[in-house]
Amino acid sequence: MTALEKLDTKNINGKYICVGLDTDIEKIPDYLKNNNDNIFEFNKLIIESTSKNVAAYKFNLAFYESEGIDGIKQLERTLELIPSDILTIGDAKRGDIGNTSQMYAKSLFEHFNFDATTLNPYMGYDSISPFLDYKDKLSFILSLTSNKGADDFEKAILKDGKKLYELVINKVNDWNANHNCGIVFGATQINELEKNITTFQKLPVLVPGVGAQGGNLEDVIKQFMKREKMRLLINVSRSIIYKDNSNDFATLASDELIRLNSIINNCC
Amino acid sequence: MTALEKLDTKNINGKYICVGLDTDIEKIPDYLKNNNDNIFEFNKLIIESTSKNVAAYKFNLAFYESEGIDGIKQLERTLELIPSDILTIGDAKRGDIGNTSQMYAKSLFEHFNFDATTLNPYMGYDSISPFLDYKDKLSFILSLTSNKGADDFEKAILKDGKKLYELVINKVNDWNANHNCGIVFGATQINELEKNITTFQKLPVLVPGVGAQGGNLEDVIKQFMKREKMRLLINVSRSIIYKDNSNDFATLASDELIRLNSIINNCC
Repeated sequence: MTALEKLDTKNINGKYICVGLDTDIEKIPDYLKNNNDNIFEFNKLIIESTSKNVAAYKFNLAFYESEGIDGIKQLERTLELIPSDILTIGDAKRGDIGNTSQMYAKSLFEHFNFDATTLNPYMGYDSISPFLDYKDKLSFILSLTSNKGADDFEKAILKDGKKLYELVINKVNDWNANHNCGIVFGATQINELEKNITTFQKLPVLVPGVGAQGGNLEDVIKQFMKREKMRLLINVSRSIIYKDNSNDFATLASDELIRLNSIINNCC
Repeated sequence: MTALEKLDTKNINGKYICVGLDTDIEKIPDYLKNNNDNIFEFNKLIIESTSKNVAAYKFNLAFYESEGIDGIKQLERTLELIPSDILTIGDAKRGDIGNTSQMYAKSLFEHFNFDATTLNPYMGYDSISPFLDYKDKLSFILSLTSNKGADDFEKAILKDGKKLYELVINKVNDWNANHNCGIVFGATQINELEKNITTFQKLPVLVPGVGAQGGNLEDVIKQFMKREKMRLLINVSRSIIYKDNSNDFATLASDELIRLNSIINNCC
């Protein structure tokens, strides 16, 4: 099954939430902190309790890299636990000159065997194309992100009146010959989402910013219901995995995921 | 000594070349390929033969990450070999929302203890600022890169007639309160360099693209001689470290570095 097929299958079954496993040792329950495999054990319990209701898992590599080799090992072990029908995203935001992007693609798509990744478009097409050579994978390219800094460059107005991120979306559509491109579009940017949803064409969209960052889930879903296929992953990290800090954190994470799914199903 | 002081000291002593240790197992001499520590041994020989004449070493993380945990271990061991007066750059081109950029900064500046890194500005100020909190380090922010894809977005023309990368340079100057920002500017973009060199103010500049990518060394140096302080690192990777593929590769890499230094000293 290609990455796009995995995503479409989950969407057909009413699953749109991507759980972000941005596991931070400082934030996990105290009883796990002194465990040698603390990151892995935390992830394992979250996966066991959420895998039936999730659309995808996203791993922000920064959280694992910052723990050095031990963090990378715990990431590798976590990936082995994920059922094969669930999309895995290596959220890396890479992008470099061609021969370097090839190496990053090899790392993400071969070494870790992620189904998908996130990429930064700043350096242009030849920084992205080595990832697009992997036809069965998905590359979500940053267009408009959920953070305040999106105003600095992403929303810069170009000579023709378009914003930079709108030019990115146009280009990504051009680059999508293998149906393996997607975009990242922040939930905190709801007016911009409404204005641009038709320009996304058939691109899958990864939407961060719901929850801790303040984006509203229903507002996002309503926009995507305008599309023929939703092709939507709404990422929620902190407000699911750290919903609770007691020994019951995994059950309460699952409850929160189910609550979010029911909000979606009520407005669909 | 801060990262900026290390750079200035090397420049004062006529050293501007940064050797890029983008070590690719496919490209190292055959006699090293089957060595268990092939990357480390290759790097060790290059460092031993070039450290007297180099200004900095740059490590493109993709090349190490693509070898998994073993690659990261060999990177860590390599870093231990580098004399403390030589700047080390973790060429990572990271940039993410605030709490994630904090994790990347921790990884690069604390775990690996690099003196400097490269960052991608697309997501704006709050994706960069966690790196700038490390006052003794240096963050080289991508402005105009050496690859063809630079035309796609970096050279996009804004409403006021400026190009996107020129807006990036302006912003980086604004962000430089701690004197720990720099920029990346490709050697293949010589006309743009000539037009913009005065806008760089006091920013240190990392210049890739000389050598395998086709940028001309003398052309670059001539532009930087217009500045009060050079604050210049010219990165050369493939055309030094793979100059020769025999058992003498390290000596011939050193010879190439000395040749490049003499070109610089003849035009300064």
